[in-house]
Amino acid sequence: MLDRLSAFIGDDNGPWRVTRIDALCGEPLPTVQRIAVVTGAKALAQQSWLLRGVTSNERYVGTEEKQKLLAVQEGLGRTQATMAALIPIRKSAAWWLLSQQERREILEERSHHIQIGMAYLPAIARRLFHCRDLGIPAANGEPFDFLTWFEFAPGDTPRFDDLLAELRGTLEWTFVERETEIRLVRIAD
Amino acid sequence: MLDRLSAFIGDDNGPWRVTRIDALCGEPLPTVQRIAVVTGAKALAQQSWLLRGVTSNERYVGTEEKQKLLAVQEGLGRTQATMAALIPIRKSAAWWLLSQQERREILEERSHHIQIGMAYLPAIARRLFHCRDLGIPAANGEPFDFLTWFEFAPGDTPRFDDLLAELRGTLEWTFVERETEIRLVRIAD
Repeated sequence: MLDRLSAFIGDDNGPWRVTRIDALCGEPLPTVQRIAVVTGAKALAQQSWLLRGVTSNERYVGTEEKQKLLAVQEGLGRTQATMAALIPIRKSAAWWLLSQQERREILEERSHHIQIGMAYLPAIARRLFHCRDLGIPAANGEPFDFLTWFEFAPGDTPRFDDLLAELRGTLEWTFVERETEIRLVRIAD
Repeated sequence: MLDRLSAFIGDDNGPWRVTRIDALCGEPLPTVQRIAVVTGAKALAQQSWLLRGVTSNERYVGTEEKQKLLAVQEGLGRTQATMAALIPIRKSAAWWLLSQQERREILEERSHHIQIGMAYLPAIARRLFHCRDLGIPAANGEPFDFLTWFEFAPGDTPRFDDLLAELRGTLEWTFVERETEIRLVRIAD
């Protein structure tokens, strides 16, 4: 299980420099200068600025959608992708009380979340980390339900802005009760 | 998040006496005489015999199915329900690589998991705990994906046996790679 655990750690020597932190709704996060992303046992570190999540099975993507995503998406760590964003989100209790079918209908049939994300591939690479069910005792649970990490080339920044605006205009987003946007730039070696 | 965490603890003074432990597939669990079920901060205890999980949002149940379940099911802790079973299960990597849609199709459209369970309500009460994404550092992750706890009256034991036999004959069960069945009886006050 540890191999699926990642931590985003506020770290003075981290390779990603924070350029902006905006609380869109809910309590803001403390400011931080740099962030390091670590996985596995290193993600168990105790730090004052720390967000954790696990990669997990997909919750909404259908079979054809999954094949399309696999065909077109690219991984993290591309040389030209020196811009990043970390967007922690918590959804409301009302969202979690919906049935799987109702959540899928809102997420895709009515909000087109998967389809919107697909239109920005492969330029905007993303990885989703789940934290809602992550019971880390020292932290008394995690403050968000998901963390999404995005990477893209500087020239694709306007497209990334468009992607966020599209998603935030959807029905699905009315269930978001806490969201913070952190923009980062990779520090040259 | 702690309010959703439960632990099944091997405890010499626990209120549930273990009558049988059978490993159906995969590595067996150590034997244990009694089990206590605790929730919240108590579930963070370190014990040599310990299984943990969280109640979470539903993953497969549709809207109508959810309404039917809510209408007919009864809670845990009924006076007459002095028999219990704890069934920890781990599914294969192949299961978790399927899309949500493929998993739903196997679980319900082809294996009728929800429908089968519904036919035994309200006699067989159940609660599902998720552990696949539960990252408890000291335990280095949990050894199972789910824990299901069942409670029923002694006279309903043959019906419970039927329920297990039905589920274990399904396509869904070909994805189960570790399963242990623990039968318990509540110790009279």
